[in-house]
Amino acid sequence: MSYAFKIRVYWEDTDAGGIVFYANYLKFFERARTEWLRSMGVSQEAMRLQHQAQFVVAEASVRYLAPARLDDFLQLELHLLNAGKASLDLRQQAWRDDLLLAESKVRVACVDALRLRPCKIPAALLERLPEPQPSPALTVPLG
Amino acid sequence: MSYAFKIRVYWEDTDAGGIVFYANYLKFFERARTEWLRSMGVSQEAMRLQHQAQFVVAEASVRYLAPARLDDFLQLELHLLNAGKASLDLRQQAWRDDLLLAESKVRVACVDALRLRPCKIPAALLERLPEPQPSPALTVPLG
Amino acid sequence: MSYAFKIRVYWEDTDAGGIVFYANYLKFFERARTEWLRSMGVSQEAMRLQHQAQFVVAEASVRYLAPARLDDFLQLELHLLNAGKASLDLRQQAWRDDLLLAESKVRVACVDALRLRPCKIPAALLERLPEPQPSPALTVPLG
Amino acid sequence: MSYAFKIRVYWEDTDAGGIVFYANYLKFFERARTEWLRSMGVSQEAMRLQHQAQFVVAEASVRYLAPARLDDFLQLELHLLNAGKASLDLRQQAWRDDLLLAESKVRVACVDALRLRPCKIPAALLERLPEPQPSPALTVPLG
Repeated sequence: MSYAFKIRVYWEDTDAGGIVFYANYLKFFERARTEWLRSMGVSQEAMRLQHQAQFVVAEASVRYLAPARLDDFLQLELHLLNAGKASLDLRQQAWRDDLLLAESKVRVACVDALRLRPCKIPAALLERLPEPQPSPALTVPLG
Repeated sequence: MSYAFKIRVYWEDTDAGGIVFYANYLKFFERARTEWLRSMGVSQEAMRLQHQAQFVVAEASVRYLAPARLDDFLQLELHLLNAGKASLDLRQQAWRDDLLLAESKVRVACVDALRLRPCKIPAALLERLPEPQPSPALTVPLG
Repeated sequence: MSYAFKIRVYWEDTDAGGIVFYANYLKFFERARTEWLRSMGVSQEAMRLQHQAQFVVAEASVRYLAPARLDDFLQLELHLLNAGKASLDLRQQAWRDDLLLAESKVRVACVDALRLRPCKIPAALLERLPEPQPSPALTVPLG
Repeated sequence: MSYAFKIRVYWEDTDAGGIVFYANYLKFFERARTEWLRSMGVSQEAMRLQHQAQFVVAEASVRYLAPARLDDFLQLELHLLNAGKASLDLRQQAWRDDLLLAESKVRVACVDALRLRPCKIPAALLERLPEPQPSPALTVPLG
């Protein structure tokens, strides 16, 4: 029921603490969302040109559980929690083998590409989404 | 009661949507935390060398309310919500003039620099912190 | 004759080698170019809206001489080498006190904002530029 | 004779001009170097732990010929120009199909991981390198 996408940790992702810089997990999660849309045949460029619509992140909550390091090969998992008319709720996780490194709950909102005001998700996209499955929320609840 | 730090939005911060990329607010918030510590005379390098301790982000929740754009001059505000023995809770906001663009609740944990295991915040640092003030949480609650 | 701009090195700029990641000097140099233009009253946003023109980097050569580290306070120096009808040649350097850390020769080209084809630099901007001064090239020649 | 590695352009790579930000090609080129080393069985982590050695970029010259955009699928090509005792010279290019977008000449130097002073490239690594082939330099010479 989940989508998975793998990435490698490069020098650019790390910081002087020797680990992946915390903001970079949001880059990883964005890549996973883009690849998830692409896997359903959804092009964000076409969405912008044909529907004048694009996704922006409205909310993101991340819990960092264990550090990732240079050369790590991470599995990014994405789970659709809810699909509204104008927004999607996703759970996104970063795993190294069996170890959960970070998990996030993300709300992406559909906005018109020009004025960035909320708008309906194009029907052609909604039809392609899998059945949302409210999960027991995050594995590790936010404090 | 709050600390404020100003930054400029540069090309590197924006994305093809014409606005600041969502992950980059976490970079901005990190800069504000570092400058806040520096303003109290706390050097993270000294903290690492003398106390073998460093801060890592354990949790971050961000709500994005309005976009920032190239050349914007942002005010980053930081408010200490709570100071525990091994972690600090902060509210961090990004403003452009009177408009709140993004706000975040961040928990930073103190860890030993070698093994990244939780440890006590050095007393010399705790003494310099302002009195924590639990605020009425976020201006705009997370959905 | 040179423009100077100061920046701080933050966690986001460093990598697991403990030093500033080499690509990030190009971010620093871009910030310095933007602030140099701003210091002459040139807004890149106005340039785009009024003249449909923007600058893009056509060439950049960087020599890395010594590493920068977390918390370093760097002076970015910019020197206009040559001003053509459609491009500018700049020498840009990053210093920590008296130590030259990195230096670069950069060519920025003016392009029309829509199709990104070369175009003339707006006269209103050219008039504000200082007299170019071909310097004895880079302090340390490229190998 | 060349090594090739493919990457996707994501939101994080672009800027408000709608194209890939110029500094990010250096990130792409670094990824290609890391994957090239990995393809020869060279782990930079092992190199650091066993030989106390790491690579740093000493020089990089980039020419930007055409812009890359969101969702582009780029082929990164790497060609070993020269292998010295303490440094490697590489030509690195970014292609989209048959269009050369950017090309670079990069010198990476081997340094001891602790003090970052030049040192010999470990023999075990040198043995694995392909025969260097001085190419007719860059396709498009630097101006």
